[in-house]
Amino acid sequence: MTFPTANEIDAAHERIRPYIHRTPVLTSKQLNLLAGAEIFLKPENLQKVGAFKARGALNAVLSLSPEERKNGIVAHSSGNHAQGVAYACQVAGIPAYIVMPENSPRVKIDAVRGYGAAVSFCENTPQARQKAADQLQHETGAVFVHPYNDYRVIAGQATAAKELIEDLDEDPDFLLCPVGGGGLLSGTALSAHYYAAGTRVIAGEPEGAADAILSFQKGEITNAPFVKTIADGLLTTLGDKTFAVIQEHVTDIVTVTDADIIETMKWIWERLKIVVEPSGVVALAAVIKYKGLFRGKKLGVILTGGNVDLGSLPF
Amino acid sequence: MTFPTANEIDAAHERIRPYIHRTPVLTSKQLNLLAGAEIFLKPENLQKVGAFKARGALNAVLSLSPEERKNGIVAHSSGNHAQGVAYACQVAGIPAYIVMPENSPRVKIDAVRGYGAAVSFCENTPQARQKAADQLQHETGAVFVHPYNDYRVIAGQATAAKELIEDLDEDPDFLLCPVGGGGLLSGTALSAHYYAAGTRVIAGEPEGAADAILSFQKGEITNAPFVKTIADGLLTTLGDKTFAVIQEHVTDIVTVTDADIIETMKWIWERLKIVVEPSGVVALAAVIKYKGLFRGKKLGVILTGGNVDLGSLPF
Repeated sequence: MTFPTANEIDAAHERIRPYIHRTPVLTSKQLNLLAGAEIFLKPENLQKVGAFKARGALNAVLSLSPEERKNGIVAHSSGNHAQGVAYACQVAGIPAYIVMPENSPRVKIDAVRGYGAAVSFCENTPQARQKAADQLQHETGAVFVHPYNDYRVIAGQATAAKELIEDLDEDPDFLLCPVGGGGLLSGTALSAHYYAAGTRVIAGEPEGAADAILSFQKGEITNAPFVKTIADGLLTTLGDKTFAVIQEHVTDIVTVTDADIIETMKWIWERLKIVVEPSGVVALAAVIKYKGLFRGKKLGVILTGGNVDLGSLPF
Repeated sequence: MTFPTANEIDAAHERIRPYIHRTPVLTSKQLNLLAGAEIFLKPENLQKVGAFKARGALNAVLSLSPEERKNGIVAHSSGNHAQGVAYACQVAGIPAYIVMPENSPRVKIDAVRGYGAAVSFCENTPQARQKAADQLQHETGAVFVHPYNDYRVIAGQATAAKELIEDLDEDPDFLLCPVGGGGLLSGTALSAHYYAAGTRVIAGEPEGAADAILSFQKGEITNAPFVKTIADGLLTTLGDKTFAVIQEHVTDIVTVTDADIIETMKWIWERLKIVVEPSGVVALAAVIKYKGLFRGKKLGVILTGGNVDLGSLPF
């Protein structure tokens, strides 16, 4: 496999730049005190569609030729990838066909429709989702964009870490992000490799969706022993493309509990006054939980999204 | 009475500048569509201590001579003024004695103590607060800083609107902020008067604490007919100094219900991913409620604070 190159990530960044926010770098003395490290947060909850997923979806959609994209895009997702693809298709002026599980929160369905996408529903199993997407693709001739196991998506997600590295005076000792399917993590690892050679990349993963840490330790893609976590954006399993990058360029994966996630989320909301979803704080929760690993270090930490259902908060 | 001059507001801004955030200007296409106007938000929830109150407290404390301030500062407040004074005293390196109602949320008490202030408690009545503050003043020789009816505080609060005016390409048609005791409103009105002569100032007030609108209409300081609102930062009544400025320089005051406040607060959290407290969204709720008044206009709107108790949210 040929991983996305630095040139491809640079090109992705140029391609999507007009349609994304360059999210700022946030710092907090209180957070540094809490963690015993110097932390630079990249708040992708403030990104278009409320999550970094806008980056990968835009790069995937805008990389397609006019001929390829003329029949639109199909995607399946209960969450931020759905909004990312819907937004990217709005930007490109092409149809978006989004398959969502029938129990998706109303606020997420409304948001996807708000970008002009056609939403259809299926049972909430990976098989049902894929089947519905396959059928839509067959009917419409649209192109399927995978949420993470796609080099164009990975190159798009890589631009978050690229921006963070560019905006820091010196390279951080570590870059941290959450891992679900591994799109952001593999992109982050490639950006560290190309743009900040001395920076190590560590992922945070919920204990209740611990497929990535097992896969990483075993050296083969492995399912989570059980799936039960509040971090509903991280339930997916690594793909072959994301796993290969992660094996080569990621230093370690550590796990956090739902209690760690909720505590960190509450801290962020109360102190930084920004809304970050449970999945979005997993890397920061790992920094706080494993502070011994990071004492006195410079850490870049990606807060990945802010799409929460305010009707069912954990506090 | 001699209102703070432009020179005094300029001097206040220079005095406090090293210790405050220059909060950004936020815009949202979706918000503009919702309101039918062009809105420039000033998110003072991202200010030090989580509210604009840091500005007035800093200006009051740092305006005092070393001799005046050597015994410290006394204040009473259940909310953001307490944190503002505690922070200002930490900056100045002097003692802060804060009287808080005994039923204040734990998170606010902890925040005030976090800035090194000595907290004492009293019953939650204006009389009990003032009595406790008077006694502390007597015991310690500290100076009392009123939360709003003080020209140094008003000049400090004026710097929020001053920054917003400076950061816009052209003067807005209207500046809007909430009104409680009137410190921010009178400061905003003075900044509009000095720095954006064509800009009119309108305040939003909760129906359940409608003293300012009645006072404004009657021409004399009047109590609210009843006090019951989720906007717990706006329960106070105008002072003679704030009222005089408001009578001369404010165009109008409009009221919103708690339902308006909660709906706007939810919209802001969900869409802009920032945490704003109920009192903090009152001006924006007024913009949305009275959109007929503002159609097609340029509006500067101050979001005043983000200190919420996540354990008792209204949604």
